[in-house]
Amino acid sequence: METVLISPKKKAVIAGSRPTVLIGERINPTGKKKLTAALQAGDMDIVRQEALDQVKAGADVLDVNAGVPGADEAALLKEMVQVVSATMDVPLCIDSNSPDALKAALAVYKGKPLVNSVNGEEQSLSRILPLVKEYGAAVVGLTMDEAGIPDTADKRLSIAVRIVERAEKLGIPREDIVIDCLTLTVGADSKAGLVTLETVRRVKQELGTNMTLGAGNVSFGLPDRSLLNGIFLAMVIAAGVTCPIVDVAKVRSAVLAADLVLGRDDYASRYIQDFRGRQRNQTA
Amino acid sequence: METVLISPKKKAVIAGSRPTVLIGERINPTGKKKLTAALQAGDMDIVRQEALDQVKAGADVLDVNAGVPGADEAALLKEMVQVVSATMDVPLCIDSNSPDALKAALAVYKGKPLVNSVNGEEQSLSRILPLVKEYGAAVVGLTMDEAGIPDTADKRLSIAVRIVERAEKLGIPREDIVIDCLTLTVGADSKAGLVTLETVRRVKQELGTNMTLGAGNVSFGLPDRSLLNGIFLAMVIAAGVTCPIVDVAKVRSAVLAADLVLGRDDYASRYIQDFRGRQRNQTA
Repeated sequence: METVLISPKKKAVIAGSRPTVLIGERINPTGKKKLTAALQAGDMDIVRQEALDQVKAGADVLDVNAGVPGADEAALLKEMVQVVSATMDVPLCIDSNSPDALKAALAVYKGKPLVNSVNGEEQSLSRILPLVKEYGAAVVGLTMDEAGIPDTADKRLSIAVRIVERAEKLGIPREDIVIDCLTLTVGADSKAGLVTLETVRRVKQELGTNMTLGAGNVSFGLPDRSLLNGIFLAMVIAAGVTCPIVDVAKVRSAVLAADLVLGRDDYASRYIQDFRGRQRNQTA
Repeated sequence: METVLISPKKKAVIAGSRPTVLIGERINPTGKKKLTAALQAGDMDIVRQEALDQVKAGADVLDVNAGVPGADEAALLKEMVQVVSATMDVPLCIDSNSPDALKAALAVYKGKPLVNSVNGEEQSLSRILPLVKEYGAAVVGLTMDEAGIPDTADKRLSIAVRIVERAEKLGIPREDIVIDCLTLTVGADSKAGLVTLETVRRVKQELGTNMTLGAGNVSFGLPDRSLLNGIFLAMVIAAGVTCPIVDVAKVRSAVLAADLVLGRDDYASRYIQDFRGRQRNQTA
């Protein structure tokens, strides 16, 4: 199944048979004091720099989130989407749970973005999905609802099924739905990674959709997070995740290694190019 | 399913619910000029040093192979097993395809070793399995036969089934059979890793046995092999490999990360201990 995202001159094709598509997570003020302060002051320099740096590091798609306390999210998200689009020509992942903010951003975006996100709550389904349909976008479906994030793969899968059914009923094709099986840190619950992995396997088997994942959550509060994130990414990519949301500079080499051993990098060309780049950086 | 290996005072318990058991691969002269020359001269110093170093690096079991050109393999393997047993008290994996060499080593080993290996060839099945039964050992079953290493998961699985059936018929319980799904380098065949991964999934599902894998073969001829090996190990461990044969010092951190995200390291205690050890080594 192929999900195609489009920017003015480029596209990103997400599919299990292709190299993993990396969604850059860094244009998001959550937990980032400097970016939060800049956005509150209307300063877009960090946003531009992060767009540039992430694409240079290998991001195929950029997530854009405007969740700043006290800001007019609709106006800010719209401006950020315009700024990022003007800086780098890659498809965007427009990140908000506010229908108003999403509508404002979708109205100005030139291309086919990924809307991040809808979830299993009735209010989310009934307000976000019509927007996705109206603007011909693709959408991330989070496997959570009114009751929070379920602690079993069965329950997460059933929410994914509900989202797909509701979207298809509105005429959104399955290939435009990207399921996020969600992960919590194994630092708090040793079974957190297993539940995610099992959900990914089940969604692949039962729904066959593309899948994203904010894989970095798995290591929250633990040391050497890049190692844990890379190892967990390898497992979830092997199980069916096709477009994780990540800190691209930190995990791209691990993802390229995963693509290579999964037969998605003929002649190891992407892997070897990345290796040479790392060698140059070390000697520079 | 639990496979229990025993040395004079220790045991290694291999099971999917437990931390991954690491079999140290380095006491093997194949491709090692220095070790080959030492063994030809009857010098056991490198063997002792490798036993010590690998256990210090975290090996739970040590593979011992005496494949030296021109040597009397039975006499050499017997001596090496005695030397390694006298040096480090961990269970051994006695590595030869010669029934005579295996018999000589099994006769002197005090404990329950892993015999490495039997394969699907009639000659191997009929000569190795009776020895395994006679000495009450566990055995590695390679998914290859007269025709070589099959290029599909289906065919490798059918060889694994054949080995398990023949062993069970002789009274060797399934928990004493450890299947090796084999891997070739993705440098020569981009689908090599995928076939292995698919075979591991099928063996887990259909036979439920423990599994080993010389995972390092996947990266032969490619740069940054430790990265590739760690990533591939993460995938195969998530799929069912429970006791890989590896260069322990190079991949243990990746395996501990895999165990942690798979819920096999409560309170992240093994992972954090390893992380602190690496920090000390960096500052030392």
